[in-house]
Amino acid sequence: MNSMNHYPFKMDADLSFYREDELFLGNTQIRLLKQVLKDGSILASAKNLKMSYQHAWHILDKLNQLSPLPVVIRQKGGRDGGGCVVSNYGLKLIRTFEAKEIAMKEFLANNSADFDSCFF
Amino acid sequence: MNSMNHYPFKMDADLSFYREDELFLGNTQIRLLKQVLKDGSILASAKNLKMSYQHAWHILDKLNQLSPLPVVIRQKGGRDGGGCVVSNYGLKLIRTFEAKEIAMKEFLANNSADFDSCFF
Repeated sequence: MNSMNHYPFKMDADLSFYREDELFLGNTQIRLLKQVLKDGSILASAKNLKMSYQHAWHILDKLNQLSPLPVVIRQKGGRDGGGCVVSNYGLKLIRTFEAKEIAMKEFLANNSADFDSCFF
Repeated sequence: MNSMNHYPFKMDADLSFYREDELFLGNTQIRLLKQVLKDGSILASAKNLKMSYQHAWHILDKLNQLSPLPVVIRQKGGRDGGGCVVSNYGLKLIRTFEAKEIAMKEFLANNSADFDSCFF
């Protein structure tokens, strides 16, 4: 018997950062940024995440537009239509988002205590 | 100058309740339950929320299947193919969800403090 069985419900949520009421960072953006960090290229990242190059490009372009500092820096030319680098500010955003997400999920787990009965 | 302008980012999230790793309650379910509470009919609620009757019926059926107690009680026959009543347990679910959502949003607002600079 797992003590988790006492909890018939589990809370979860997807975190997003908004800037002036526009979606700035969510799971899609974070997943793409982390892939660009690995691949150094929008084309390769789009392929690895099975999204179109246009869609990936649009997401990163919007991020840069909404951001007070550049999040990714695109380098023109070369193979794959030029590389793409995540800025130090972009790294900070990824780390901040992930830390906030962990804190939120901890909060939700701690606040499930009153579900500790089948019918709460 | 609004002091909110100091916060370039705002965190938000959509809460969901899961039961045995299946989505149980989210915004869609809560919106529909609250409409049924008002209308007393799946057909009227589906119309008011501009969703198909089939979709609304499916959402409520799934809710009842996953729940340890009935969430809605469908009454056969009569106008509109029979009425639909939200059970006391359903009311408790709505209130619990909304209270948890408020607590989560407060937590997120309180944890935006370190965004209190343009570049945090």
